[in-house]
Amino acid sequence: MRYELFYWPGIQGRGEFVRLALEEAAADYVDVARKDDGAALMRLLDGDKVDRPPFAPPFLRAGKLLIGQTANILLYLGRRHGLAPASEAGRIWTHQLQLTMSDFLVEIHDTHHPISGSLYYQEQQPEARRRAADFRKTRLPKFLGYFERVLERNASGDRYLFGGRLTYADLSLFQLIDGLRYAFPQAMKRLAKRHPKSIGVHDRVANRQRIAAYLSSERRIPFNQSGIFRCYRELDG
Amino acid sequence: MRYELFYWPGIQGRGEFVRLALEEAAADYVDVARKDDGAALMRLLDGDKVDRPPFAPPFLRAGKLLIGQTANILLYLGRRHGLAPASEAGRIWTHQLQLTMSDFLVEIHDTHHPISGSLYYQEQQPEARRRAADFRKTRLPKFLGYFERVLERNASGDRYLFGGRLTYADLSLFQLIDGLRYAFPQAMKRLAKRHPKSIGVHDRVANRQRIAAYLSSERRIPFNQSGIFRCYRELDG
Repeated sequence: MRYELFYWPGIQGRGEFVRLALEEAAADYVDVARKDDGAALMRLLDGDKVDRPPFAPPFLRAGKLLIGQTANILLYLGRRHGLAPASEAGRIWTHQLQLTMSDFLVEIHDTHHPISGSLYYQEQQPEARRRAADFRKTRLPKFLGYFERVLERNASGDRYLFGGRLTYADLSLFQLIDGLRYAFPQAMKRLAKRHPKSIGVHDRVANRQRIAAYLSSERRIPFNQSGIFRCYRELDG
Repeated sequence: MRYELFYWPGIQGRGEFVRLALEEAAADYVDVARKDDGAALMRLLDGDKVDRPPFAPPFLRAGKLLIGQTANILLYLGRRHGLAPASEAGRIWTHQLQLTMSDFLVEIHDTHHPISGSLYYQEQQPEARRRAADFRKTRLPKFLGYFERVLERNASGDRYLFGGRLTYADLSLFQLIDGLRYAFPQAMKRLAKRHPKSIGVHDRVANRQRIAAYLSSERRIPFNQSGIFRCYRELDG
């Protein structure tokens, strides 16, 4: 089965968490919107013939299924491609970690858009400065500290978030750290020392054969100032 | 099995979505933090002996499992108590709707806390006014319109979000509408006409025997100004 991934062309965004899982699984997929500049994506979002319309991208066509919500897509792909634990307890826990990363991602996004996604960054810059300062001081250390603690307490060692094997949650932690380093280079440099195990997961994922090949390919869209992770010097520090 | 629900005492918050499912299922549960003022909850959150620590409440103890993240808890309870579809496609779709409601809830919360959860509302009131104005104008109609569309397109009729039977997603839609009416009475009064099917779900859920009994019991904490849904006249309109 060839998967069809629908996500805004031009940014990594939430679609990237799905791409990383598809790449690691060596799954057959097409990144639809990058071929047609979003035309089919818009038809599925706004068309009146879609029985179960997604609220927003990313969504994945898998045979007859059209699955929306990043964590939901990963829950589906994880089981099918050996990227999730076999036990129910492990699957629930991995999904829980992914949902916590989804929450983290919203807060990362809102550092540059604290008022509205319909306004430009420049139209909400004073508010963004204030929100980003709080994010760097309280939220960023809280979330990073949490995942570090999860790694410390993994009874099978600290190489992966759960057990002794990679899951989609490790791929997502890689993406978060990679994006945070792009968006908040100074803050992340300061915090790196306190989060060696999370940085370890980042590096271990980056060096996996399929992921390394993907990252150096043209399929990996570079970080840029339209994405979720944006680098504004005045928001870092 | 007696479930143990852990959530901040004194507010409905995210815990309420779990309570509604437990009540509708007539499940045996104890609302732990309301008995001990949060002592056991804090031990699980901050204790260093928890193998798989949750990031934040709510979390549910179910036998050996400690499950965090509202939508994850509902995914678990739904299957066990007949509050989720039997088919995989139906379960994935119901979870997708729940995750979209989680996103909606974050935006509702951030109308009064657009800068930081560590600051009082009064310390971020100008930003809150701006964010709430955008929320009323763009986000509230977008989310409500989405769930209305989902009801319109349900091939089994518009009584429930999926199929012809209640799922936990209907309980959650009830809670969202109930909370929005408390927080934004004027805006919701204007919008009610355009969303009759969603209001229908709200009323249908409110009138279910177990839910009606719950809502009129002391187990239902009233909406208040410490919760996610808060009524500030200057944010409505």
